Parts: sequence; C-alpha cells; structure tokens
Amino acid sequence: MPVPASRPFTVDGAQYANWSRKIFEEMRAGGVGAVHATVGYHENFRETVDLLVAWNRRFAEHGDLIARARSVAEIEAARASGRTAILFGMQNPSAIEADLGLLEVLRDCGLTFLQLTYNNQSLLGAGWQEFEDGGITRMGREVITEMNRLGMVIDMSHAGERTTVEAIERSARPVTVSHANPRWWRDTPRNVSDRIIDALEAHDGLLGLSLYPHHMAGGSACTLADFAVMAARLAEQIGPERIGIGSDLCQDRPDSAIAWMRDGRWTFETAANPNGPPVFPAQPAWFRSNADFPGIAAGLRAAGFAPDEVDGIMGENWMRFLRRTLGTV
Amino acid sequence: MPVPASRPFTVDGAQYANWSRKIFEEMRAGGVGAVHATVGYHENFRETVDLLVAWNRRFAEHGDLIARARSVAEIEAARASGRTAILFGMQNPSAIEADLGLLEVLRDCGLTFLQLTYNNQSLLGAGWQEFEDGGITRMGREVITEMNRLGMVIDMSHAGERTTVEAIERSARPVTVSHANPRWWRDTPRNVSDRIIDALEAHDGLLGLSLYPHHMAGGSACTLADFAVMAARLAEQIGPERIGIGSDLCQDRPDSAIAWMRDGRWTFETAANPNGPPVFPAQPAWFRSNADFPGIAAGLRAAGFAPDEVDGIMGENWMRFLRRTLGTV
Repeated sequence: MPVPASRPFTVDGAQYANWSRKIFEEMRAGGVGAVHATVGYHENFRETVDLLVAWNRRFAEHGDLIARARSVAEIEAARASGRTAILFGMQNPSAIEADLGLLEVLRDCGLTFLQLTYNNQSLLGAGWQEFEDGGITRMGREVITEMNRLGMVIDMSHAGERTTVEAIERSARPVTVSHANPRWWRDTPRNVSDRIIDALEAHDGLLGLSLYPHHMAGGSACTLADFAVMAARLAEQIGPERIGIGSDLCQDRPDSAIAWMRDGRWTFETAANPNGPPVFPAQPAWFRSNADFPGIAAGLRAAGFAPDEVDGIMGENWMRFLRRTLGTV
Repeated sequence: MPVPASRPFTVDGAQYANWSRKIFEEMRAGGVGAVHATVGYHENFRETVDLLVAWNRRFAEHGDLIARARSVAEIEAARASGRTAILFGMQNPSAIEADLGLLEVLRDCGLTFLQLTYNNQSLLGAGWQEFEDGGITRMGREVITEMNRLGMVIDMSHAGERTTVEAIERSARPVTVSHANPRWWRDTPRNVSDRIIDALEAHDGLLGLSLYPHHMAGGSACTLADFAVMAARLAEQIGPERIGIGSDLCQDRPDSAIAWMRDGRWTFETAANPNGPPVFPAQPAWFRSNADFPGIAAGLRAAGFAPDEVDGIMGENWMRFLRRTLGTV
C-alpha cells in the first residue's frame, strides 16, 4: 500500500497522540511516512524503558501499519513497505537522569530525538518558563558532544532562547526546533525569536511548524491560509529547505496529559502557565488528525510554494535533516 | 560513657569518612556528639536507599557507639547515652530526581540535610563550578518550601554565589553553608564571599568552618593558630554564634572518592578542577581524625575566644541552628 503520488511523503516532527490503530490508519490515509513520536516527558530512565516496552508491543500488534525506525535506512524500508516509520523522542532529559552513559543505552533502544529541556531548568539547560536562562551547562556540553557522536537529534523545542542558540552553535550536527512557530507570528516565548531563526539558518537547522493552537496566531481560529502565509514569509527569512512540520498533535489525549507535561512531579501545585488552565485547546477545523495532512500541502501550494518546495516542507526537508543528524546505525 | 567536661560537646557539620568502628571510636575519644554524615553525592533515589540500608546495618552493628538522629530530641538522647548522633545528608539533590514528593520519603528515612547543588547545575540551582549561576529555579523554590515544611536543613555548600544568597533569602528557616571558609581567607569560589557571609548574618544562618586543606589558607601547611585567627576575625564579621565546624573530613577514603564527587556520571572525561588531579590532599598535622577535635577547642581558646564562645563554635551553635531547622519529628 505505497503512498499515492498525489499526497507528498509526509514527515511529522512531533506528535504525542494517545496511540491506537485508528490513529495509525489515519497516518496511512494522510500519507504520513514518518513521525517523531514523543515517548514521554518527565519519566526517569526506568519509566522510559517501560514506555519503550509499550511501543514494542504496538509494533508487534500493528506491524502492518507501523515500524520502528532508528535510521534513515529504516525510514526508507518502512516507506517501501507502505508503513509509517516511528522515531522515538523524549521531550525532557529526565530519562538520562544524571548519567551520560544512558544516552547510548537509550539510542540502542531506539531513542533518536531528545529535547535538552522542557519548560524548566534541566541538568543540561534552561526551558522557556524558567526564571533565568544561563545557557548550556557543563553536563549539557557533554550531552551535545555525545549526541553528536551517537547520531541523535538535538531538539530545542521548549527551551529558553539563550540555551537554544548555544546548543545550535555548539553542536557539530544541525539542530532542530521540532515544534514551534516564529515569535513574530504569535508572540510567546514558547515560539522562536528572530535570534533563534537566524541561528537555525546559519547552522542549516530545521524548524518544524506547529499546528498546536497556542503556538498559532488566532489560536484555534487560525485559518489554513494564515498558516501558509506565515510559512511563505518564514521561507523568505530562513529558506524553504529549512522548514518542516512538527504538528504537536496530541490526539485523543485527556487534559490530564497537559497537567503531566506542565507539572510533572516537580511541583505539588498547578504551575502557572500563560495559556491558562491545563486544558487542550480545540484543534483548527483543517487539522484534527493525521488524515488532514494533504490539506496542509494544498494550503502551501495555494500560498505560492512550488511543488518541490511543498514536498520539502511536508517531508523531504526532514529527511535531509535526518540524513545529517542520525548518521548510520 | 558521657563526654568528659573538659572536652566540649562537639558537632561536626560535614564528614564523608569511610565509616568504620575505628572512626566511631575516635568520635567518642574526640567528644563528637553529633555528625552530619554525607550519605552520598550523585546517587539517584534507589541508590540512596541502598546507602541508607548500609547505614542501618552500621547502627545495628555499632549501636554502642552511634545512633541515628532525625531530630534534636534524638541527638539529646544519643548524648545522654554516650553515643554519637548521626544525621544523614546528601551533597547533591540527585537523590530526589525530579520528584518533589521524594523529599518527605527520604525525610522519613532519616535524611535531614540536603545540598541544593554540588559544583554543577542541578534541577534546583547552580553550583560554584557552573558556567553561569541563574539562581534558584522553579523546582528549587518548591523544594525550599517543602524542606521548610518538613524541617530539613538547606545546605548551600558547593553552590554558586547567587544561588546561595537566593536560598538564604527565600527560606523561611535559617540556612547553612555547612563546610566552607571565608573567601577573604582563601580566595576560591568554593569558599563563601562577603555577600554570602552578610546574607547568613542577616538571616541568622550558620557557617561551618572547613578543615579541608583546599579550603584553608596555606593548604595542608595551614597552622591551627592561623585557623583560629581566621575564626576570630569571622566572629567579628558575623557573630561567634553563627560559626560552627564542618570539617569535611574524608578519613580513610581512596582518591577514587574524589573522582566520584567531581565527575559523578555526568562526564566521561575527568572534569577540570582548580585543585588539580583528583587526589586527597594531606590533612594538617593538627586535624587528622575525630580524636583531634579537642585540639581545635584549645586553639580557639588560645585565639582569645571566651569559654562559652568555644562551646558554641564546637557544637552548641549547631544545636541552636538545628533546633530552628529540624522542627519536631
């Protein structure tokens, strides 16, 4: 069941769905060839292993639709067999605790993406909600070197500006902000500043555009046309080849998932958040599931992108980025 | 076997010995009534529990010499029975991982002291060797509040200056730097600046004077007289009642213990350190074991301290501090 030519080969740079066969079928319907799937947030190493075990069961049960991918070759193999490649990521480095050696162990188990921070200070750097951003720490430098060696994707979503720029400049391989939009479009520190955009451009990184309402101008009411015009303006700033999609789709998750993301176990109270109480906002009508990706491609074409540029943004730019970051496993 | 009146009741604010019956006997010989014993450094929660199990075995085996203490009442009970009270501490918060709830669990298991950082950035604040010190983090604020609630000692040894001052100012209970000397005596960022000394004075904290050669003017060649003169000058600055001893004695430990303290598991390389390779420096001739504490008291008397001031510095100031920080368990 190869993807029909009318739908571009699509790579989504960030999803945290409540995974189910229905969702995997929607991925096939939407032409989604690969997904960076968030495995977890604040889990420690042992809990992360449990989450990987759950994923291994999903591959066993839904092996006709999905396949684990730790390399570009494995993404291509999944593509050839008409399945969606799943790349594992953690949105917070608590999975490696204070142990540099756990990176290789988790890489062996399939972890390819790691965010250096999630909103707060981590052992590696500062998140966007932290009081101060002191940049990449002593351990953070070691982690960047080791991720470069292992061929892992350094993801700076949810990080502070200084931490993000330092990671981009210090890494020997390109870096991504897998799910965020330009701050000039929606002004929140969760989105990327021009300074970050410039650093991504200078170091040939990739920005995955987010379809999460709190990251978009107009929120849930944002139109596809507005989104595509933003992408066109960004393409002039950074080059269309450095843009991808990172939808941040959390399909079928209960609101308690947001409370876990925000509060983890670091506070007993509900943490302050500029987006208000921990409730999922309504997705825009034009993007509610993986089956809606072809519409995004159509919207980009309508905004004036050339066909090869649309193919790039929908997936080929991610593939080029992954060829330079994952190395050969 | 009560402590003879000629030796003051002594409290040592920091030790990490290779614990043995010999050392416990030296504690008795030296009149050491209570010790803040470092349980560990970079261990995670589960590993910390293992270290507490090892301590429970020591209490079972050497119960004639030592007793666990979680409160001032338990210190007094140990004192009445002629045993040395052992108070548990961790020099790094890795034991609580990213889980605020583990504080109460470890408090229940006897942990009374916790350093918010050890040299590097932690989830709570920055250590003195970190590139930047952004102060107390979001989780750090929660931890301070919870430690205040539980009656735990906030120990800022090994922290950066800003992090230390913010902890002192934010905590509702007094804070200690359990093992360090004034920077004006030995100029290293591991020691405390005047800004920190002023904050301790303003918030009625306690500075435990260190007998570790790298913290002393002259290093291993430092004389007892020099040490006592420093204490006298500090007493003019901060008040004699805010001075204690925190010897940092690491008796009978192999040099590999220093490598563990410095490098933990956060780096594969040997971390840079201004004190050079990870080798224990020679202790000064006048302080090589717990049996040498009476000599410190004599040195303080020779430097002009009044008898009650000597008793304060040797132990009663720690007791006053612990009455205000440990609460009732």
